[in-house]
Amino acid sequence: MARAPRIIPWSEMAGALDSIDCLAEMERAFSQYSNGLSVIPPVGELVFQDPPGDVHIKYGYVRGDEYYVVKIASGFYQNPDQGLPSGDGMMLLFKQSSGEALAILLDEGRLTDIRTAAAGAVAAKLLAPPNPDCIGILGAGTQARLQLEHLQEVIACREVLVWARRPEKAAAYCQDMAKSGFAVTSADSPAEIAAKCQLIVCCTPSTRALLQAGSLRPGTHVTAMGSDTASKQELAAELLGSADLVVADSLPQCRERGEISHALAGAFLSEDRIVELGKIIDGEHPGRESEDQITIADLTGVAVQDLRIAAAVYERLLP
Amino acid sequence: MARAPRIIPWSEMAGALDSIDCLAEMERAFSQYSNGLSVIPPVGELVFQDPPGDVHIKYGYVRGDEYYVVKIASGFYQNPDQGLPSGDGMMLLFKQSSGEALAILLDEGRLTDIRTAAAGAVAAKLLAPPNPDCIGILGAGTQARLQLEHLQEVIACREVLVWARRPEKAAAYCQDMAKSGFAVTSADSPAEIAAKCQLIVCCTPSTRALLQAGSLRPGTHVTAMGSDTASKQELAAELLGSADLVVADSLPQCRERGEISHALAGAFLSEDRIVELGKIIDGEHPGRESEDQITIADLTGVAVQDLRIAAAVYERLLP
Repeated sequence: MARAPRIIPWSEMAGALDSIDCLAEMERAFSQYSNGLSVIPPVGELVFQDPPGDVHIKYGYVRGDEYYVVKIASGFYQNPDQGLPSGDGMMLLFKQSSGEALAILLDEGRLTDIRTAAAGAVAAKLLAPPNPDCIGILGAGTQARLQLEHLQEVIACREVLVWARRPEKAAAYCQDMAKSGFAVTSADSPAEIAAKCQLIVCCTPSTRALLQAGSLRPGTHVTAMGSDTASKQELAAELLGSADLVVADSLPQCRERGEISHALAGAFLSEDRIVELGKIIDGEHPGRESEDQITIADLTGVAVQDLRIAAAVYERLLP
Repeated sequence: MARAPRIIPWSEMAGALDSIDCLAEMERAFSQYSNGLSVIPPVGELVFQDPPGDVHIKYGYVRGDEYYVVKIASGFYQNPDQGLPSGDGMMLLFKQSSGEALAILLDEGRLTDIRTAAAGAVAAKLLAPPNPDCIGILGAGTQARLQLEHLQEVIACREVLVWARRPEKAAAYCQDMAKSGFAVTSADSPAEIAAKCQLIVCCTPSTRALLQAGSLRPGTHVTAMGSDTASKQELAAELLGSADLVVADSLPQCRERGEISHALAGAFLSEDRIVELGKIIDGEHPGRESEDQITIADLTGVAVQDLRIAAAVYERLLP
């Protein structure tokens, strides 16, 4: 008889997360992803039209590790109109040696949010200019908040410019993030962000490019993590073509979805110019090589990130 | 705040299943699958080498239905050596309109076993000769037991010949199934089953063909459900080529895995000769057209089966 999996509600996880170094876990995740030991099949996806929503199923394992993970995370962007969070989901941890279900982490999508934000901080640590005057944030939702909070660990700058499609959301963001010690003002347009910020994080579900080619200042780093489906896009394809360095969390995934997929499809970019984040972490690629380079990191979210954060939480909660 | 999903252990499900007509649910599932209303992406798969195991992640939805499903089921065939069941898994039911997780059915793979057996009975109901003298079963595991139990609903015959790779397992099967009213004897080889039975159900994890071309008697129906990965195989590819009717649960899945994939790869069969089970259920294809036809159903297991059985159990257990 198999043992019943442990059911872990979010309330139990929150405390465990305090003692987890999420950035270190994500660095380990990207390294494991890019070093050939990971088995990460293509992302499973369900897309709904009415109401619009998308569900991602990410799964896989690292050879020699104890677990395999299956993660379900959904975004239904009209949910807040009904008082529901837009995201939901869970992470499932199984034993690689027997298939036994070990744990169901009822994170309601929050571990995905956190590992995505931690990955953004990893990208900034490796690629951003050392002392930007101003951080630009596109979007004012959950991810926009978490990104800024995680950036604190790697960037000293506390000046922030935010743009969101709905000005009232940007205003709420300015107020809320002030409580975390940031001086946040609202920008009139994404172009204003491009003109004033040297570290820009894009976290919108936009389906049209928000940042245009030629708009960035030399030395800028952009991390784009909003576009996790084939139809979403935050950066003009030409912008990737003109960047000095384009970094992917996963080359196979970025071929199919996200900013890089658009740039490849439009022949603005060739695959040999794309470097995986794990290769920079492992020192196989130098990353940013001068103060003037424009660098772009495209994060689509990889199952090994889910594996590492789920395993870390599960292990903290073991008796 | 999203409501927490309902956690349903197997002990709660068992009672609910008594009042569910699983065959009717599976007929509805195959009909919904083949009528174009279903969105069922390719099966997600993880394969492990040491110890050997495979995990299938099946997911999807029917347009206009209330739910979407994600099902995880694993087979680790050395588990019994350590006193563990070879299968584990769970079914997850979510709301199509918001992505909210509604229920986690901790079935440990049993709902997958049941829906697979019910699908076998549906195939026999539609395709088997009306009064076979003897039912042949290849395999003596859980699925071999469940198949026979579900066949009772559609076939009067109680004479059974079983073959299993390990004779002691076949002997145990004979004893156990006698308790359910079957007269079961053990065959020396799959060829003996082919020579004596007009309804044959293959439920082994074999990776080499067990039934050869030319070995079947006219009028025989074979349902093969053991081969759910690309490397598994129970029927010689030539056998499918020479059959009068080849039926798939899902043509797209059977292209990639199972008996039909081998027959297509070897050019023993062309796609235009394959009929989906749902088309026969809906009366769009006549199914078996004479007493002498040899018919083969290849069942790889489709997410819409998981959706229908999970939804039926969930709805029975609603307050």
